[in-house]
Formats: sequence, C-alpha cells, structure tokens
Amino acid sequence: MYMRNEAAIALSCLRCGNEYELNDYTTGCPSCLGEGYPVSLEVKYAAVEWSVDATKRGMQRFADKLPYRTFPMLGEGDTPLLPLADLATELGVQELWLKNEGQNPTGSHKDRMSALVVARAKASGYTTVVAASSGNAGASLAAYAAAAGLRCVVVTTVGMNPIWAQAVRATGAELVAAHDAKLRWKYMRRMVEEEGWYPVTNYLDPPTGSNLFGVQGYKTCGHEIAEAFAGNAPTAIVVPTSRGDLLWGIWRGLQEARDAGWIATLPRLYAAEPFGRLSRVLAGADYRGNFPGDHSSTESIGGSTVTFQSLVALKESGGGAVDVCGKDALQAQNKLARRGLYLESSSAIVWAAVQQLKDSGQLGAQDRVVLVGTSNGYKDHYFAQLPAIDVIDAD
Amino acid sequence: MYMRNEAAIALSCLRCGNEYELNDYTTGCPSCLGEGYPVSLEVKYAAVEWSVDATKRGMQRFADKLPYRTFPMLGEGDTPLLPLADLATELGVQELWLKNEGQNPTGSHKDRMSALVVARAKASGYTTVVAASSGNAGASLAAYAAAAGLRCVVVTTVGMNPIWAQAVRATGAELVAAHDAKLRWKYMRRMVEEEGWYPVTNYLDPPTGSNLFGVQGYKTCGHEIAEAFAGNAPTAIVVPTSRGDLLWGIWRGLQEARDAGWIATLPRLYAAEPFGRLSRVLAGADYRGNFPGDHSSTESIGGSTVTFQSLVALKESGGGAVDVCGKDALQAQNKLARRGLYLESSSAIVWAAVQQLKDSGQLGAQDRVVLVGTSNGYKDHYFAQLPAIDVIDAD
Ligand SMILES: Cc1ncc(COP(=O)(O)O)c(C=O)c1O
Ligand SMILES: Cc1ncc(COP(=O)(O)O)c(C=O)c1O
Ligand SMILES: [Zn+2]
Ligand SMILES: [Zn+2]
Repeated sequence: MYMRNEAAIALSCLRCGNEYELNDYTTGCPSCLGEGYPVSLEVKYAAVEWSVDATKRGMQRFADKLPYRTFPMLGEGDTPLLPLADLATELGVQELWLKNEGQNPTGSHKDRMSALVVARAKASGYTTVVAASSGNAGASLAAYAAAAGLRCVVVTTVGMNPIWAQAVRATGAELVAAHDAKLRWKYMRRMVEEEGWYPVTNYLDPPTGSNLFGVQGYKTCGHEIAEAFAGNAPTAIVVPTSRGDLLWGIWRGLQEARDAGWIATLPRLYAAEPFGRLSRVLAGADYRGNFPGDHSSTESIGGSTVTFQSLVALKESGGGAVDVCGKDALQAQNKLARRGLYLESSSAIVWAAVQQLKDSGQLGAQDRVVLVGTSNGYKDHYFAQLPAIDVIDAD
Repeated sequence: MYMRNEAAIALSCLRCGNEYELNDYTTGCPSCLGEGYPVSLEVKYAAVEWSVDATKRGMQRFADKLPYRTFPMLGEGDTPLLPLADLATELGVQELWLKNEGQNPTGSHKDRMSALVVARAKASGYTTVVAASSGNAGASLAAYAAAAGLRCVVVTTVGMNPIWAQAVRATGAELVAAHDAKLRWKYMRRMVEEEGWYPVTNYLDPPTGSNLFGVQGYKTCGHEIAEAFAGNAPTAIVVPTSRGDLLWGIWRGLQEARDAGWIATLPRLYAAEPFGRLSRVLAGADYRGNFPGDHSSTESIGGSTVTFQSLVALKESGGGAVDVCGKDALQAQNKLARRGLYLESSSAIVWAAVQQLKDSGQLGAQDRVVLVGTSNGYKDHYFAQLPAIDVIDAD
C-alpha cells in the first residue's frame, strides 16, 4: 500500500480560503460551487521543515511536499533542463532553457499527476480510475493504473489519435469514445456518481481542473526548476496550457521552493494557448464562459474552457497568456525539430509564444526564460502527408 | 567546437591487440581485416584517476572516459533504473530491475552514441553524417546532427516504419531507401569512400559494428548501472542485441567501473536476439557467417550478421545468448505494458529472454538481474490491427 504523508493535513479553497478535511472533493470547493464558481481545493501541509531526499531519484525526492510519500514508480521526474544558448541569442534574451517533460516514462508531464492519483485511488480502496482524455493524460493514467493494479477507463472522442489509442490499450485499459469533448465529462460524471469510479481529470462544466491529489505532483516540476537554478531563479517560465493543472502546479512548487529558501525571487508564468481563452479572461471576460477556437494543429491543448487555478498562477506571478495560432505552432515545431528538439506540436508552441512575448515587450533582453516542453514528437502523426522516400539503386 | 578528451590517447584492436593512432578507422582493425576478420578498434585512455563530474547531468558526468568531453546535449543519459520486485518474485530471482533507455531524448539508447559521433564528425571537419538504419539509430542521429548543425542522411529500406520516417524528416535529415538491408551498407560505403560522408553505423559485410567514437557513449550505460548499485553489482544483465554495440559498450563501462573500485564483481551479460545468430556462433559457427531468420515482430534487432565485439562481451563476462521468437517477444511486450512498462517489442524481448534463462538454469534464485529496455512503445505501430473504439451515448 502507498504511504500517506502525515504532513498533508487539510484542503483549502483557492478562491474563498475555506478549509476542508483531506477528502476527495472531486468537484472542488462546495461553498464556491454553491455560489456558481467552480474552484479547485489544494492540499495544505503542516509548517515543518522539508528537505530533498537525496537517496531517491525523480519525484520521490520531494515526498515531503506530496500527499503520498510512495506511489508506483515508472521513472517519473528528473527531466533534463537543457540550455539553449543559440536560441537565446536568436531571440535576444539573456538565457533560454528547455525543461523537457517529454522524457517522462509515457512521454509527457502527465506522469507526475498519474503517479499520485493512482496512489490515492488505491489507498482509498477504489478499484476503477477514469479520465476524460484523448491523449497524454489517458496514456499516462493507463500506464500508472496498470502499475498499481487498478482498472482504468479512458473516455475519449471519436477520431482519437491512434498513437495514444494503442498506448492506452497496450496497458489493458478500456477505451470508450463520446461524440464530443464535453460529452466525455457528462459520461464521466455519471460513472463517478453511479458506479463509484475514481475521477482523475475534471468532469465539471465549467471545469475546476484535474484531481486535487494528482495535481500536487506537478509541483515537483517547479521544485526541479528551482533546484536547478539554485538561488538564481529564472525570470519567466512559458507553459503550454489547457486546463492549467501544470501551470498551477509549477507555480505552487516554485512558491514552496522560495519559502524554503531555494530561490530568492519568483518568475512570471506565461500560459501558451492555441486561441484566446485565458487571454480573454485576463482582458475582462468571466472565467466560467465558453471560448471556442481552432485547435486542429494542437489537439492536446484544445477545449473551450478556463480554470480558476490558471488565473491564480498568472495573476499571482505577474505573467500572462499568449495565443499561438496553428500555423505558428507547426512552424515552431519544425524550428525546434531542426535544432534536434522533437516535441509534440502542442508543446512546441512555447517557441512561438516566447517570440511573441519578446516582440510585445513582455520579455526583455535581461530575461532568463524556461520553456516547458510537455510532450515529445512521437505523439503527433502526419505520416500520410509526407512525400514518398526516394529509392536509391545501390548496385 | 566540441572539446577532445586528452586522456584518449590511442586505439587498439579487440582481437589482435595492435595499437593505432586515434584516427577514424571506420572499417576496424586494418591488420585483422587484411586476414579476413572484421574487428572493431576501441579507444584507449591514459591510466589516470577518473571521477564523476557531479556538477553535470547525464552522460557528461562521465566525460573522463569519453573521447569528447563536450557534445551536443539533448538530455541523454541518467535514465531510470526501476526496481521490479513483483516480477522478480514471479520469475523466482532475488532482484529484477529495468534500466529504461526509452526515456532518452529520442526514446532509445542510441542517443548515447549519437552525441559522441556528431561531436567527432564536427571536430574533424566533416559536414555530412550517414547511417544505415530503419529505426532508432537513424532517428537519434538525425536529432543530434540537427543539434550540431551537420547534414544527415539516413539510409533505410523500402517500407520503413513511418513513425521513424517522420521523426527523421522532422529534423531536416534526408532519407533514402534501398531495396534490402545489406544494400544500405553498399550504398553507404560508396558515399563514405566517394563523397567523404562520415559513417556512423557499420557499412562492412560481415560487419565490425558502429563508429568507434560513437560506441564509447554506450559505456555510460554501464557506468550508470555500476554507480546505482554502488559496491553490490548485479549478477546478470540482459541486453536486446543486433550488432552488439550497446552490449559491448555496457561491458566496457562496467569493467572501467570495476577498475575504479565502484563495484567489486562483474555481472554476466546475456544478449537477447530474435533468432540464432550469436547463439550459433557460441555453439561453434564462424562469426563471419550469414544467419538469416524471422525478425518481423522485432524489426529493430533484425539482420543476419554477428560482430566480434558482441562475442567479446559474452565470453569475457561468462554470459550467453538467448533466442526469443516473435510470438514470445509480442507476449513479453504485452506482459510488460500491463505492468505499466510500454516498451518497443525489440526491447520488451528481455522479459521473454530472462524467463528462458531462468527456465534453463542459467539464472538462479540468487541472481540479481538488470533488464535493459532499449526503446519505448511509441515506436511500434499496429493501429490498424486494433478493434474500433466503442462509442458511448453520453446523453
Ligand atoms: C502536450 C500537452 N501540453 C500541455 C497540456 C496542458 O495541460 P494542462 O491541462 O495542465 O494545462 C497537455 C494536456 O492537457 C498536453 O497534453
Ligand atoms: C530497440 C533496439 N534495441 C536494441 C538494439 C540493438 O543495438 P545493437 O546494434 O547495439 O546491438 C537496437 C538497434 O539496433 C534497437 O533499436
Ligand atoms: Zn471556495
Ligand atoms: Zn586486429
């Protein structure tokens, strides 16, 4: 059985500050939801000194700040932080780095969430976990559920990218398709309420975000960045964003690292999104609205909704949101691949985003910027569009 | 420019022991080849104390034992070593571990070779690198060549798996196809001799193995294993093998670690292969022979030839070779995926191999075994064979 962290003592609401017992509030703060505001709860830890467990590798080094001290290990965390001096020069910033989450066990940052969420499900006696996902979250959950011996159901949409479908099924997980993305949430809700399945992703509309125990795992990405820069924190971090689980997790991880004295200052966080969602809310729209747009080139970060937690990260850090159109995302993917960095288009979007931020003056020559690469290029497939390979005559 | 390691002082032949200057002997030992024996040369280092550079991450920590101290960094090395206690029990061995090379930047162990070989090519003034590969080696070289600003040509066969074709092309590398695997070598040889391209893989038939500077990188996989077990070395390591570059590299890395006192004993190395090649040579066949067989389920480790370097690793370590048929390889892939470990079939073969080794008594209850997972499951594709996804009615 997976071991609980005794320092994790309560939950609190990101909006109203109400405290709750450490239970599965899978639709966020009941009080805010009652007023019509979907908002995540976060885990609160006793104010004890914490330290990195140097005898471990990866996420487990940060067990002091995770709700479970142990969880299935597939090699999650400790992803490389690559210096990109050439691209920094080209862009005109002081430093540029890539934190490559595509080198996690299933090739995306989602593994940091899956490890904790299956530990929670298992420790609480659930037998089935469910996620609404048509990509990385589903493939990751499927692997960790298999490692933990849990039944896993991934609810996708018709026309799911077969690379992920294969990865999900390989683990023995079940895959069902709904006719559109929001119907996934409806189906998931029914199964959670009627069948007692344990929900891993959001299923409310408008959404709160993913499972509160799971998103704690994303803090470790922030911890790793803070640790690597040791004292001299970057000034900005750019994160590919849909529901903002990762964005918020990185932010809280950085704050914890700052409170612990690992870094003195906090970077600004910028969300890279495929069309105006967060940017429209930052400009005044109600965050509970519907913001449709084209995500055909960046399907992993699609969806027409915004979460409260994303806004917390952007506002508290003094950052913002950047909209990158499909054409620019594909151009960024091409640019990075020709530098040896083969990222999924939804992830390569950060290169286009950082260019826009520089052009608009939100980033300057003194900035030291980390791009978060969330997934590797093996997830995309556009084989059919590639020209035939030239056949040579070797004789 | 990439920095040479001054401690790398000469080359020596694995068979006759002749020493040569540190140059590009791309067809191995001239003296042995003259007698009809294709054999690799290896880099010799001055007998100086060496240490791990703890300020670095990944392969660069072992720069003291690499021909180049610097090389393009994409996040190669420091791959997880996962304890598989459940599978150890099932198998009846004391310990079982997975060294997951599928978490390298391009998803295979080949990145350890590519980093060094492009450093050498660049430092020697070459402008084009070429590899005969229909998979991982090509995709990896393409990425590192892009990072180093080298032109890259990958010579594949007609019908190349489109997942790798896409990955190669994304980097801007050129892809050409020959009608069969051995014709790739013929074409490559012509381009090396007539066009001055720098050869990364073997191109002799019978083969010597890959580029002598490149294969030095595989030693770091052995270094990492030795370091992780610190004093208490595993007793056996199982390695998916075709030309044995990795097998040999791990072996030399372990020997260096033993000589440096990191571990007291050396494990036996076992090559997992898709049909009798090394096993036939160990049983008496001439290593320069042709050993055809079916590798349709494990295309990455196909080919009908054996290298001298593989035999050195197996004989010196007291290990052996295990033939795993396609059916067993696919079953092993399925078994590991249902444990959350999604490996390419050519890599998952190690699970079937270790079972055979246990059944035959080559491994016993006291053994502590490391399986080397060479590549992740995102490389295989069998989408077309999967059943359609059930569509649910969410309303
Ligand atoms: C590649 C990739 N990048 C970024 C994200 C964004 O994740 P989040 O919902 O935490 O914002 C996702 C998943 O949704 C993803 O698959
Ligand atoms: C997945 C995988 N495993 C193992 C190997 C074997 O490599 P080697 O030629 O070093 O034996 C290869 C490449 O050939 C490979 O692609
Ligand atoms: Zn509230
Ligand atoms: Zn010789």
